[in-house]
Amino acid sequence: MNNDLKQVIFDYLSGIKEDPQVVGVVLTGSAGREDMDQYSDIDNVIFVNGSTTIKEGKFMLGKYLFDSRIVNIEEIQSNWSEDMFFAYLNSSIVYDPGNIISKIITAKREEWTTRMLKRLQLALVELSVIYEFSDNWKGLKTVTHYHKFLDRNDYISAHRILNIGFEIILDILYLINNSPIPDIKNKIRLLPKVKILPNDANKLVNEVVLITSFDVNDLNRRYKALILFVNFIKDNIEKSQLHISDNIYQYYLANRA
Amino acid sequence: MNNDLKQVIFDYLSGIKEDPQVVGVVLTGSAGREDMDQYSDIDNVIFVNGSTTIKEGKFMLGKYLFDSRIVNIEEIQSNWSEDMFFAYLNSSIVYDPGNIISKIITAKREEWTTRMLKRLQLALVELSVIYEFSDNWKGLKTVTHYHKFLDRNDYISAHRILNIGFEIILDILYLINNSPIPDIKNKIRLLPKVKILPNDANKLVNEVVLITSFDVNDLNRRYKALILFVNFIKDNIEKSQLHISDNIYQYYLANRA
Repeated sequence: MNNDLKQVIFDYLSGIKEDPQVVGVVLTGSAGREDMDQYSDIDNVIFVNGSTTIKEGKFMLGKYLFDSRIVNIEEIQSNWSEDMFFAYLNSSIVYDPGNIISKIITAKREEWTTRMLKRLQLALVELSVIYEFSDNWKGLKTVTHYHKFLDRNDYISAHRILNIGFEIILDILYLINNSPIPDIKNKIRLLPKVKILPNDANKLVNEVVLITSFDVNDLNRRYKALILFVNFIKDNIEKSQLHISDNIYQYYLANRA
Repeated sequence: MNNDLKQVIFDYLSGIKEDPQVVGVVLTGSAGREDMDQYSDIDNVIFVNGSTTIKEGKFMLGKYLFDSRIVNIEEIQSNWSEDMFFAYLNSSIVYDPGNIISKIITAKREEWTTRMLKRLQLALVELSVIYEFSDNWKGLKTVTHYHKFLDRNDYISAHRILNIGFEIILDILYLINNSPIPDIKNKIRLLPKVKILPNDANKLVNEVVLITSFDVNDLNRRYKALILFVNFIKDNIEKSQLHISDNIYQYYLANRA
């Protein structure tokens, strides 16, 4: 973080600290992750204990667009959504006089690993209705919507469901790296940062994203790139020490929402 | 529904009815909507009051692949997820001796209209960070992730975020038709069934879905199709009697989760 921004944040915090209701402040988004560029907002969350007059929403401070959110401290003490795991486990705490925020985040980091295992298995089941696990890996073979759309000659729905399959694959790539899933806009941009990734991930991503025509050839081309992603994922799960069920479909039946 | 399937369902139900825990049975999915084809599963939900030995999951009955789910009746008496609204408001009740299921669904149909108004406004805010409301329609103008990706020359993330914008537009099209949002695989297939739709919706969908290269020209081509969708949506909201805030961004700040 450059000194100019540090100074702006320092000034911003000195105003906020005057409010006795404020428990802490964290930077989220790219400012929290320290992968900002000149187009980034300064996303931040102000945790309060009760009501406050501090302003919320977007406003300019110096040359930076701040996007501030007021959150009651009780909200992060209870259940976290997926986006909260990504936002807060990758945040920078900039004010936390009672160490309350830091304690919560540490506890949630533990909880994440358990949640990740469930999320990963449910994501594989979601994928199995798009990508066919023809070898019945971990009980995941079923008739896919993708192949039904092919049978119906509905090539536009087929392409679109491959898009959705690709989104699930992106999620799974983060999960096998024990990373919370980024907010939706960042899933491709942050991918190069994870450790376990196919060597030619860039090329494969391009291959899946392109949709050049509504016919079987173009669908086959994209599906082949998906196969390479899925084989990579299967190999890595096999090699890993992750506690994954031998029959993920059965796991899903017992654990779905 | 053909007579063969009717007979299979009749036989299936006669077994289920023997279990005194069963409160009712509904067909969901394409069987519930009566838009099945030869590739469709027979999705069905068996509502129970306590534990049962009826089997769940996928199995063949005659030439049909049944996909049965056991749900405790308490589950549909409490809060519904979005997928539940779509599944149950479009279901066919095939067994409901105490009229319990039918009463719940009728009450939830009322609830839907209120939820829809909230969902629609939140969806427009989600869209506003991808598609630029340059006229500041209903307070929605902001810097978009799409344009930031263009500025960064990150054309692959730009294409992908237009995909996400298109998914939001599909949701909004269902919402302005007062329809719950279909499960993800059906959003394109069921679109021709809604009433309020651009005349050239098919052509526009194709235009948005195609991604032929990673450059500004191809992005502009897709974005232009999005503009036409958004203009259609704005016009229809203006013409409608929907109770939508004049400043949707302010509404979002007050009503987000």
